[in-house]
Amino acid sequence: MILLGIDPGSRVTGYGVVDVSAKPRYVASGCIRIEGEDLAQKLARVYAGVSELIGQYRPGEFAIERVFMAKNADSALKLGQARGTAIVCAANHGIGVHEYAARQVKQAITGNGGADKSRVQHMVMAILSLDALPPEDAADALAIALTHGYARQGLLSVSSQRRGRGSRGGRWRDFRPD
Amino acid sequence: MILLGIDPGSRVTGYGVVDVSAKPRYVASGCIRIEGEDLAQKLARVYAGVSELIGQYRPGEFAIERVFMAKNADSALKLGQARGTAIVCAANHGIGVHEYAARQVKQAITGNGGADKSRVQHMVMAILSLDALPPEDAADALAIALTHGYARQGLLSVSSQRRGRGSRGGRWRDFRPD
Repeated sequence: MILLGIDPGSRVTGYGVVDVSAKPRYVASGCIRIEGEDLAQKLARVYAGVSELIGQYRPGEFAIERVFMAKNADSALKLGQARGTAIVCAANHGIGVHEYAARQVKQAITGNGGADKSRVQHMVMAILSLDALPPEDAADALAIALTHGYARQGLLSVSSQRRGRGSRGGRWRDFRPD
Repeated sequence: MILLGIDPGSRVTGYGVVDVSAKPRYVASGCIRIEGEDLAQKLARVYAGVSELIGQYRPGEFAIERVFMAKNADSALKLGQARGTAIVCAANHGIGVHEYAARQVKQAITGNGGADKSRVQHMVMAILSLDALPPEDAADALAIALTHGYARQGLLSVSSQRRGRGSRGGRWRDFRPD
């Protein structure tokens, strides 16, 4: 099962592709840059980029960060436009869309819902046995895809349940210290 | 020249189709309702709805309201998702996208950038010689399409220029009192 994680932004949309058929395996990651064009062209570029990823990697499911509180109305509008474009692209390709709050992603990847971005990057590198630290956008997108992989396997514990279930340690077995 | 105006919202997306080849002529209007489904389904429905309108009416250009200040970050995100979906649909169909601020639309349609929605409805009814008052969403979408029609003909005067150019009265000739 291939999963596509998307971290949308008004200028850069990160993507991460993982194979969660067995132990999570890195497939691809990167970002779609959309600077310096008009809005319609920018969104068309996000759509075409996500379409291309879907065509190339054939993900079975799609995961994206759920936004609870944007910084301000203007940035929320811009983020919404990019986010809506990525989601509708997945929906138009018949791929199920799953949303996770940033806190859920951090919790699932690092064990701490309040972890900083650097910690997420290091844990993503460890989980996927990468040779180098993935860039922030790609790391976030890979983290979202991995979070959905855990949720699919029933291994995702929400913040309030984490402590109790952590003792089983099931999904942490593959982790390496960063 | 057929123009498609879109008034996007998180629950209802209004549309208006006008023919501006000569005197502006009403072609169609209505709204795409997207209540009670999950986000991906909602956005897919907006995309499919706009696609259908493009397929049915073959608009040469597309006009949408430019949002300067949304009420709050949460509603701005939702609006952005619907707005981005409508814009990327037009862009994917190769149709030029044009944006107008609400104030520009009100100014173009009523001569007053601070006009209320009811005044816009009445003027749209008059301009297009409609038998009845169009519903608010449809009226706003028709007003956006008409505004782009005026802009294409070089008849659009921005707020600060309105008074001076108003004396020529060119585009108001076809107006009837409501």
